[in-house]
Amino acid sequence: MIGIAHHQAAGKQPDPALQHAHIYVHFKAVYTLALKERFGEGHLSGVGCAQQLFHTGDLNGNDAVLSSGRDKAAMGLDHIVTKPHEALADLLAEDLGAVNALIRTRMASRHAPRIPEVTAHLVEAGGKRLRPMLTLAAARLCGYAGGYHIHLAATVEFIHTATLLHDDVVDESEQRRGRPTANLLWDNSSSVLVGDYLFARSFQLMVETGSLRVLDILANASATIAEGEVLQLSAARNLATDEGVYLQVIKGKTAALFSAATEVGGVIAGAPEDQVKALFDYGDALGIAFQIVDDLLDYGGQSGTIGKNVGDDFRERKLTLPVIKAVAAADDEERAFWSRVIEAGDQRAGDLEQALALMAKHGALEATRDDALAHAARSKAALAALPDHPVRKLLSDLADFVVARVS
Amino acid sequence: MIGIAHHQAAGKQPDPALQHAHIYVHFKAVYTLALKERFGEGHLSGVGCAQQLFHTGDLNGNDAVLSSGRDKAAMGLDHIVTKPHEALADLLAEDLGAVNALIRTRMASRHAPRIPEVTAHLVEAGGKRLRPMLTLAAARLCGYAGGYHIHLAATVEFIHTATLLHDDVVDESEQRRGRPTANLLWDNSSSVLVGDYLFARSFQLMVETGSLRVLDILANASATIAEGEVLQLSAARNLATDEGVYLQVIKGKTAALFSAATEVGGVIAGAPEDQVKALFDYGDALGIAFQIVDDLLDYGGQSGTIGKNVGDDFRERKLTLPVIKAVAAADDEERAFWSRVIEAGDQRAGDLEQALALMAKHGALEATRDDALAHAARSKAALAALPDHPVRKLLSDLADFVVARVS
Repeated sequence: MIGIAHHQAAGKQPDPALQHAHIYVHFKAVYTLALKERFGEGHLSGVGCAQQLFHTGDLNGNDAVLSSGRDKAAMGLDHIVTKPHEALADLLAEDLGAVNALIRTRMASRHAPRIPEVTAHLVEAGGKRLRPMLTLAAARLCGYAGGYHIHLAATVEFIHTATLLHDDVVDESEQRRGRPTANLLWDNSSSVLVGDYLFARSFQLMVETGSLRVLDILANASATIAEGEVLQLSAARNLATDEGVYLQVIKGKTAALFSAATEVGGVIAGAPEDQVKALFDYGDALGIAFQIVDDLLDYGGQSGTIGKNVGDDFRERKLTLPVIKAVAAADDEERAFWSRVIEAGDQRAGDLEQALALMAKHGALEATRDDALAHAARSKAALAALPDHPVRKLLSDLADFVVARVS
Repeated sequence: MIGIAHHQAAGKQPDPALQHAHIYVHFKAVYTLALKERFGEGHLSGVGCAQQLFHTGDLNGNDAVLSSGRDKAAMGLDHIVTKPHEALADLLAEDLGAVNALIRTRMASRHAPRIPEVTAHLVEAGGKRLRPMLTLAAARLCGYAGGYHIHLAATVEFIHTATLLHDDVVDESEQRRGRPTANLLWDNSSSVLVGDYLFARSFQLMVETGSLRVLDILANASATIAEGEVLQLSAARNLATDEGVYLQVIKGKTAALFSAATEVGGVIAGAPEDQVKALFDYGDALGIAFQIVDDLLDYGGQSGTIGKNVGDDFRERKLTLPVIKAVAAADDEERAFWSRVIEAGDQRAGDLEQALALMAKHGALEATRDDALAHAARSKAALAALPDHPVRKLLSDLADFVVARVS
């Protein structure tokens, strides 16, 4: 772990709630596990320590870049002035402040004080607000002059948080069947019910916009998210899971909310149809790239280096893209190996190394990286239909940034 | 257990899916436990056996009546021609058939076949469709001529089903802390995620009505439901829980969906404001009465008779109204008893009998019954603002019927 200095634009005095917003892109798994490892059983005493944690987050081996794409113009951390999501946060600072204020107001509960307690750990624990920022960016890019993009950004963050809470329960269930890691931060009941509450609150927020089209988009996204999560249950531990099923799963678990976040930003701004479609396509491709990168990093990235946090998906027997590609290329003996470790769950010392060796043999990690880069390129291409605007450039940089950790 | 003959209006050939709709009012706890007791671990092979089960359901000791109220004009089963919810089901048979068809269509999933598998067990397992019937009845009563009441009725049933699925997970969590009963029908992951899917599907259905007011009502109801469930978590095992907290909990867990179900029926019909308010008040009071009766029956009803399914709440250390009333009247020694069995969870042989004796001593069961009757009377009074119509009479009878088991 290495620390990174706070970036602060000269002369700016941002809202304290935003001081911790411009941090390295973190991934859900890292986030959850790190909190649990650090604080163990029970509740955190406050969010300050969690915020601190994220400032010394998972940066090892990941060269961040401003704008690279396939040319790999990686720059060392010393040379970085502003990462694209930080630059977006600066540009949208006022809106983000309003979103944070709205989130704090709406996560309250008149009758059940446990709700804001549970919610605060997630919502105020130094998250980078990537999804709501996408909504704000899309609305800004399309020249929106109203105020409902704040509601929609908060909506998107609430849906994301509710999903994390429910994922906690699902992960615990997985663990009971295989791995003995407990759900340490909250009990199942609180996670399920507070998640439901946040879904309902997000629903209230979007109704307030008065836009039936926005409601339609978010209702459909909600169904796709849940469908993808259920599909993932049956896809796990099943070697028949192919790339088509994998794509459907990650569209649900990640891309559906990204694409809804950008699309509703355009819709609320009254953007023309081709721009709304471009925003959807951008978010969809970005979300897919984001999840593929996440899954690739779980095997140490392109190089397949074993390090901290590597192999979680392997131990949980998840069929992610690197494994799917290696299984597709496997001979009989290799297939027997995959069947033993993934389907039967009979994992022994050295199996992760063997899995990585098989992935290397068949070029599965490189092929996975290439897929991520292709989706990132697709997301950038979609931006061509949108107005030339500083936000557009930052969204393009963001697509590069998402895949920079593996390129 | 005693069987009841199917009621069939002469000459009618109802939709096969509805043949089992007019069955005795069952309660969620009975439903879930009965299924588990009967079928044990794993999945049911079909819904037929579950339907059969409900036809021989929990009728012991419960004289059903057509119209009684406080006058206790109870009639033996031999004299019953039609119970009010059966009569409503007959009157609304065409609409109910459309609701069932819509539910079957919308519980499908293109990508995740596990979703309809899990959903079918609950949605098609002989449920009486009480909540959707309230929506259909309200729309009919207010002269609605359109088709969106079908969508709203299916919406309400999906929300109810999603809540049941999530309750299963919460109950398992409770059991881990105290009682060793497993969640037998499904695993946690499927229950959480399929519940989320049904919430999303309900959301899509209501968006299709194009009524922002309906969306507002259902969004608020969803928040109240989740809030009540979270409040229940902190209220459980806490002797400080008073009648005010209890009322808030049951408004959330039961009454909010009843009142939303009736209110949206009036709203979609374009009913005048006083009628919409009357429909809300009817559903709210009916839901509260319904839940108080459920909680009272868990202690054997007014007589406090120990029998099958009695004492579940006691063993789970829930602060329901009979206990709250007994605790409020307790002397020091009695308070120590309640503290031991409810707060500390140190329950021994004879404790349930002792709890019932203390309730009898302080008249807690009778007082609980009186509260249920008062709410039923309030629900009937609300109907005065609504048009004189056969449906109104049946809704009034339904209020009597809900409390008939304890009056």
